[in-house]
Amino acid sequence: MASDRSNLAIALLHHPVYNKRREVVTTALTNLDLHDIARSSRTFGLERFYIVTPSADQRNLARRITGHWQEGWGAGYNPDRREALGIVRICPDLESALSELQSAFSKPVRTVITGATQRPGSIGFPLFREMLSENDQPYLLMLGTGWGLTDACFAAADYLLEPIAGRGSYNHLPVRSAAAIMLDRLISQQQ
Amino acid sequence: MASDRSNLAIALLHHPVYNKRREVVTTALTNLDLHDIARSSRTFGLERFYIVTPSADQRNLARRITGHWQEGWGAGYNPDRREALGIVRICPDLESALSELQSAFSKPVRTVITGATQRPGSIGFPLFREMLSENDQPYLLMLGTGWGLTDACFAAADYLLEPIAGRGSYNHLPVRSAAAIMLDRLISQQQ
Repeated sequence: MASDRSNLAIALLHHPVYNKRREVVTTALTNLDLHDIARSSRTFGLERFYIVTPSADQRNLARRITGHWQEGWGAGYNPDRREALGIVRICPDLESALSELQSAFSKPVRTVITGATQRPGSIGFPLFREMLSENDQPYLLMLGTGWGLTDACFAAADYLLEPIAGRGSYNHLPVRSAAAIMLDRLISQQQ
Repeated sequence: MASDRSNLAIALLHHPVYNKRREVVTTALTNLDLHDIARSSRTFGLERFYIVTPSADQRNLARRITGHWQEGWGAGYNPDRREALGIVRICPDLESALSELQSAFSKPVRTVITGATQRPGSIGFPLFREMLSENDQPYLLMLGTGWGLTDACFAAADYLLEPIAGRGSYNHLPVRSAAAIMLDRLISQQQ
């Protein structure tokens, strides 16, 4: 199916992110992040969802998870899940994700970073939604795991997207849920 | 914290729902549904999230999961999660969830049901959002697990909420992600 929104892709980065003590670490893959973000991405018409981790073991694990639903018993049992996991691409670093996405577009890929904290200079969802209507301009939306992407990642990205605010001071959405809300705000026809 | 949106509560029902072959079953608790919907609900200011299952074993499991983060090692390690799980209430059936919610309000609780399929007579998110602005009118949003709540549940509910549509025919959001999107559409100040 051709999608006019395939110019948006998501990357879930397991490195470089902070841990609770603000040390830069590589987080472990979360099975459900992979499944849920793949299903939400596929539901909203995305064609690429990058799982990024420098750990070869973790990339093998990601391949096993997606392979199960692609080829094994899971493929016949749950074809919808196979279709979602078909958009997952597994990469060792941001550069290789960018270069894979770039291979499908002629305009240079722009990176958009986001996190749970308000930072100066962010763009809002309505503006990013409008930017996405330029169909031939690819964007990679970078999501962090652990306690968030490093400051260096934020400094290097082309755009900073505003965080999702709840009500009151408590704001601890799982990355899986935040991704679903972002896709809904950026792509849903309801808005 | 006082919230002017505490008139919305969510119930995640593990019975009566369909399985893949459209038999009425009780589904097993999913640890991540409990955590993710609690975190999203707490982020958007809800004060009640009901886990509904007729299985005493499964209710004990739900108590163990929430208890770990409330009292055990998890409580100190991750106080944010404890705060989210503090809104979880575990019930054997819809009636007991309704009666618990009713105890906090004088107006009769109205039930709102939703699923992945388009059905006639549904209300849209903007209308439900407007209905929620009447602060003293409590609503229970019913979410199903498995292959969805039974037709009898749909017939008995006061309101039917439109499904979340993606782009194209693929529409397989996890219930965790659908809940997050619904809360964002109904409560977020951004919209």
